[in-house]
Amino acid sequence: MTTRTGPLFTKVALLGVGLIGASMAHAIRRGSLAAHIAGHTRSPVTRKRASEIGFCHSMHEDPLEAVRDADLVVLCTPVGVFGDVARTIAPALKPGAILTDVGSVKTAVVRDVGPHVPDGVHFIPGHPIAGTEHSGPDAGFAELFDGRWCVLTPLPGADEAAVERLKTFWKGCGSRVEVMDPKHHDLVLAITSHVPHLIAYNIVGTASDLEQVTQSEVIKFSAGGFRDFTRIAASDPTMWRDVFLNNREAVLEILGRFSEDLSRLQRAIRWGEGDMLFDLFTRTRAVRRSIIDAGQDTAAANFGRNPKKP
Amino acid sequence: MTTRTGPLFTKVALLGVGLIGASMAHAIRRGSLAAHIAGHTRSPVTRKRASEIGFCHSMHEDPLEAVRDADLVVLCTPVGVFGDVARTIAPALKPGAILTDVGSVKTAVVRDVGPHVPDGVHFIPGHPIAGTEHSGPDAGFAELFDGRWCVLTPLPGADEAAVERLKTFWKGCGSRVEVMDPKHHDLVLAITSHVPHLIAYNIVGTASDLEQVTQSEVIKFSAGGFRDFTRIAASDPTMWRDVFLNNREAVLEILGRFSEDLSRLQRAIRWGEGDMLFDLFTRTRAVRRSIIDAGQDTAAANFGRNPKKP
Repeated sequence: MTTRTGPLFTKVALLGVGLIGASMAHAIRRGSLAAHIAGHTRSPVTRKRASEIGFCHSMHEDPLEAVRDADLVVLCTPVGVFGDVARTIAPALKPGAILTDVGSVKTAVVRDVGPHVPDGVHFIPGHPIAGTEHSGPDAGFAELFDGRWCVLTPLPGADEAAVERLKTFWKGCGSRVEVMDPKHHDLVLAITSHVPHLIAYNIVGTASDLEQVTQSEVIKFSAGGFRDFTRIAASDPTMWRDVFLNNREAVLEILGRFSEDLSRLQRAIRWGEGDMLFDLFTRTRAVRRSIIDAGQDTAAANFGRNPKKP
Repeated sequence: MTTRTGPLFTKVALLGVGLIGASMAHAIRRGSLAAHIAGHTRSPVTRKRASEIGFCHSMHEDPLEAVRDADLVVLCTPVGVFGDVARTIAPALKPGAILTDVGSVKTAVVRDVGPHVPDGVHFIPGHPIAGTEHSGPDAGFAELFDGRWCVLTPLPGADEAAVERLKTFWKGCGSRVEVMDPKHHDLVLAITSHVPHLIAYNIVGTASDLEQVTQSEVIKFSAGGFRDFTRIAASDPTMWRDVFLNNREAVLEILGRFSEDLSRLQRAIRWGEGDMLFDLFTRTRAVRRSIIDAGQDTAAANFGRNPKKP
């Protein structure tokens, strides 16, 4: 533990103030991690709303103003525009500043942002693995990162002191921190996040397209399991489009395995192979237990949604 | 509304006292729907535990004793043994009694139970669409059915008074009631429950089998979406094996559509068709809103799992 006097950063610039950017601002304030938080977003509506909520000390139309003199700059937009944003802000980045991001993919971020980073700026890609199905500045809250993992993927030769400082920052936001290779990150997230989102979007789409079952029936009887998928399938469309377009290789790899496994289950159902089904269903139950033991989900039945049951 | 003096049934027999049977007992007590609740289960351990909790007035090793003189008999075991149970209890069923069940499939229940029902007994298949990932007598709670739908699938020519009485019973347990054809029920549930469970079991299985990503990584980073699937994939293995073996036709039909749709998404990712992805992801968001508006799920972010965010 280092003893700190005063905030960790003089000025943090958040480029993008949706769910993640806004939550970071709240968490930075809660942890007194920066003397000044500057925010930027292209959207006038979002900028106005963020100003009203007031989680940033200053909101800027011009991203160059937001990042000027900042010692921590965080890309919080959908990953599809990271390259453009990085190119735009590059001339105003302060030597010695840390440039990081919160994108759900990392190889593509290194590819798109890396070339624009000026000498003397420490580019350390990152990904806080936390979120909700809500989006926009009103969705942000200080506790979003509490107990969740943040993965940093520093490039070979990255400045160790800068990496440590960014680790300290995320811990101050409530996160636990892990360092990983970008390519490995993308594969891990493909299975723990990207493909689960894709199949959730897909089943909700399939349900919407049925001729024999009405939309009203799907809604009414959704408590049988379907409703859980709709939460995930309510996540931000722009963000998720960009994730899939930018983690193609890993997503297709995991999706291939998922489909193979599903074909095997399909065959087991067709041929009445009950033992095979029972064995799988028993094995998967243990994974749930591990996630609860690791503090990554609640043990309460139905995620605690039942009126009175603890 | 009928005005009732005294309980709706003199004696209710619950054959099976796991999550659903136990919850029914609690709900029956809460609503004063029966003067006596008799329970049966084959398992000595479960029988002992159910007796300790005490939600039934009497627990029986012999199912014939449990159903004797009962005017409502409910099959609450996994559907795979319904036929055997029905054949066993048939001689002790009281004329005029209602025989129902809580199975997640209905065509197979009509097929397996129907032939054993004595003349004068009203067989009305049913399915309360409610549950949690927990199982066993300790998992039961009175509020499980509150606001959820219960589907009854009476056969052609069913006694209308008996159907009304069963409807009143389920409303007394907190449910809303819908009447449906068994075959249609099975198709609706295939999309709203069975296939969602199957793909949840499947993705958790796929994640367990990866060589390049450790189990520990899957657990740690599960907050990205995966953890939601593990809840569903922690459901009772016996119950779910029996569901898939007994709703084969509808599950395979929906699964075929799901796989077709997933192939289309896979292709869109491979070819970088962002607009197609964005359009689907926008459409699915609206389904979530409808489910919340219909009172079938919470509007709170992350199902309300976040520490402080409302």
